[in-house]
Amino acid sequence: MDYRQFFDAQLRSLHDEGRYRVFADLERHAGDYPRATWRDDDGGGENEITIWCSNDYLGMGQHPLVLAAMAEGMKQYGAGAGGTRNIAGTTHAHVILERELADLHAKPAALLFSSGYVSNWATLATLASRLPDCVVLSDAKNHASMIEGIRGSRAKKIIFRHNDAADLRSHLSALPAAQPKIVVFESVYSMDGDIAPIADIVTVAKQHNALTYLDEVHAVGMYGARGGGISERDGIASEVDIIEGTLAKAYGVIGGYIAAAGNIIDFVRSYASGFIFTTALPPAIAAAATASIRHLKESGAEREQHRARVAEVKEKIKAASLPLMETASHIVPLMVGDPVRCKALSDRLLREEKIYIQPINYPTVDKGTERLRITPSPVHSSDDADRLVAALSRIWR
Amino acid sequence: MDYRQFFDAQLRSLHDEGRYRVFADLERHAGDYPRATWRDDDGGGENEITIWCSNDYLGMGQHPLVLAAMAEGMKQYGAGAGGTRNIAGTTHAHVILERELADLHAKPAALLFSSGYVSNWATLATLASRLPDCVVLSDAKNHASMIEGIRGSRAKKIIFRHNDAADLRSHLSALPAAQPKIVVFESVYSMDGDIAPIADIVTVAKQHNALTYLDEVHAVGMYGARGGGISERDGIASEVDIIEGTLAKAYGVIGGYIAAAGNIIDFVRSYASGFIFTTALPPAIAAAATASIRHLKESGAEREQHRARVAEVKEKIKAASLPLMETASHIVPLMVGDPVRCKALSDRLLREEKIYIQPINYPTVDKGTERLRITPSPVHSSDDADRLVAALSRIWR
Repeated sequence: MDYRQFFDAQLRSLHDEGRYRVFADLERHAGDYPRATWRDDDGGGENEITIWCSNDYLGMGQHPLVLAAMAEGMKQYGAGAGGTRNIAGTTHAHVILERELADLHAKPAALLFSSGYVSNWATLATLASRLPDCVVLSDAKNHASMIEGIRGSRAKKIIFRHNDAADLRSHLSALPAAQPKIVVFESVYSMDGDIAPIADIVTVAKQHNALTYLDEVHAVGMYGARGGGISERDGIASEVDIIEGTLAKAYGVIGGYIAAAGNIIDFVRSYASGFIFTTALPPAIAAAATASIRHLKESGAEREQHRARVAEVKEKIKAASLPLMETASHIVPLMVGDPVRCKALSDRLLREEKIYIQPINYPTVDKGTERLRITPSPVHSSDDADRLVAALSRIWR
Repeated sequence: MDYRQFFDAQLRSLHDEGRYRVFADLERHAGDYPRATWRDDDGGGENEITIWCSNDYLGMGQHPLVLAAMAEGMKQYGAGAGGTRNIAGTTHAHVILERELADLHAKPAALLFSSGYVSNWATLATLASRLPDCVVLSDAKNHASMIEGIRGSRAKKIIFRHNDAADLRSHLSALPAAQPKIVVFESVYSMDGDIAPIADIVTVAKQHNALTYLDEVHAVGMYGARGGGISERDGIASEVDIIEGTLAKAYGVIGGYIAAAGNIIDFVRSYASGFIFTTALPPAIAAAATASIRHLKESGAEREQHRARVAEVKEKIKAASLPLMETASHIVPLMVGDPVRCKALSDRLLREEKIYIQPINYPTVDKGTERLRITPSPVHSSDDADRLVAALSRIWR
């Protein structure tokens, strides 16, 4: 085995397919986001740009309350947690945050993880491997973190058609009533921006005695009267067994979690390797996340401005006859359908127009559906939207 | 399937075995660590205690340079990164940190992950699944995160006897020369505190054309002239293919990483699901970690004080005839050998003596080897050590 040759060949294939990823080296400017400095490693020096593809959907990553809580948490507790949750790493800031998360989804308990990815992976790997002879019914468009968790569990997996409760029903009907089952799906799908029929899926799952696991990472903070996500907006949260969310998108910080009944939380807390054997998040991060959640429970202003800006951007893009994929959510994708062209468009936007929209390519989306994914936020102005659409129109010709 | 009954029964078995985990609710006091406030949920109110089981081994979690860098990073960039590394989440702070990490281990490149757990899991799952027909040779005492990564790869796994290069050789000899192989091991084993014969293991691996993967999470910052771990101390770092480490223990922050040749790093960066599909660490965290690494590259004072304090505590424990497990590292375990007794000792230490040492039980260690694991640090005084040993002596009787 010539390892060097193997790695080089694998990397070459990425270049050949046009999907080798180059990370943009950015300096977000706290207080002035979506403005940032982009360092062009190809000799172009430092450039002032506008970010249009961040998942800091509401700009909470620079909210004064969030930054104040983080600074205060750091001053009080220091930098890191210093241990796993079990060994010296649980601080009062973690305890408070988990209470806040449980309350957000009106569940009895919640559990914090290093990230949304880890929360999906660790929870599903644990539940599906430990429930005896468990079957997982997984939406066809589920995120990589859920797919990895299900895969890691070694449980039987059945993929149901995307957002299709009838297809789910037909699969569930074919399974023995006594067999443990988990239905795994998302509320807002991040790349297509479509929204799941949660009530339909939950109804079908309940009829067949299946647990339901709902990923709300692209919805928490942004939907529902208190930011509880689509399940809150649709009044169905109490019917969902496990709601998973993130602190890294609308809440602007980092970390992931699940909220559920006490015995489910305690079970995952007690058995999930990916929860047990890892250092707790820094207390200052937990404090910042708590401040962000609390603010968005009380304040609807960010959600309103967000909706308004999204509608405005969609309208202007449509008026410019750009290839908008229609969505029911805040995600604004422009279909390109080719990885090389997608990257070229993105590169020209960045270099010529000082607008940063990362190309989205395989494996994040299917091959042939490469796209630019735009995420308007309350911190983008109407002028920003005009400049964006003018730039896109120039580049697209 | 009655899910509630299942979860309740599983939790009951933990209680019955005496290994149900209760997290101590702590408030570390930045600047005054190892002092902390412990909230006793059983009505005991708030208690001032001393922490003796943290993995903030050098107290860097409260170092002024680390806190200043974190505060400055937050002021400049905000709270969260706002995206995955590929989509708007790479900031200049991440780029700088990865350069610092590569330099720490004198490797061409490094890659940052959410945590040490994720770096082990994601790297091993990716390498072992993508190298065709790969065999993983794994030390018998490897950490859960590596075990999960190897398991997730579906590659063939051979467990070699703990720290036994001869046993490794016999396994490697039996494998075809052309077959890809990875030898996976740690430098300092965190629960027994013993240290791997890195040079012997690397020599054997090279003779059989195996890649070597070394986990240095309990060594970086603490061993080697610049904190590069046991592999630096032993002058063998350049011979190890992949060195993995953490920013959450001696460096006092959070996050994990690998350092290796450029094409290995680029390969993992490009193919690892657990790296690609997750939000980047907050830039302020990256800045804090960079400051911590830089400081410990230059300053040997913390390492010297650490060694001195560890030696002092070991000596005093021996003089008191407590059941010390002899170790060649900074880990100071006291063998108890029973989960119920171990928890009872820990509870009495906390309640009566205001000393916090979490009981270590299965699955962190094998059943029958439950222990108290003490981690002296430069921020513990000689008086603290005296009080610790006096308290342990009282409780042990």
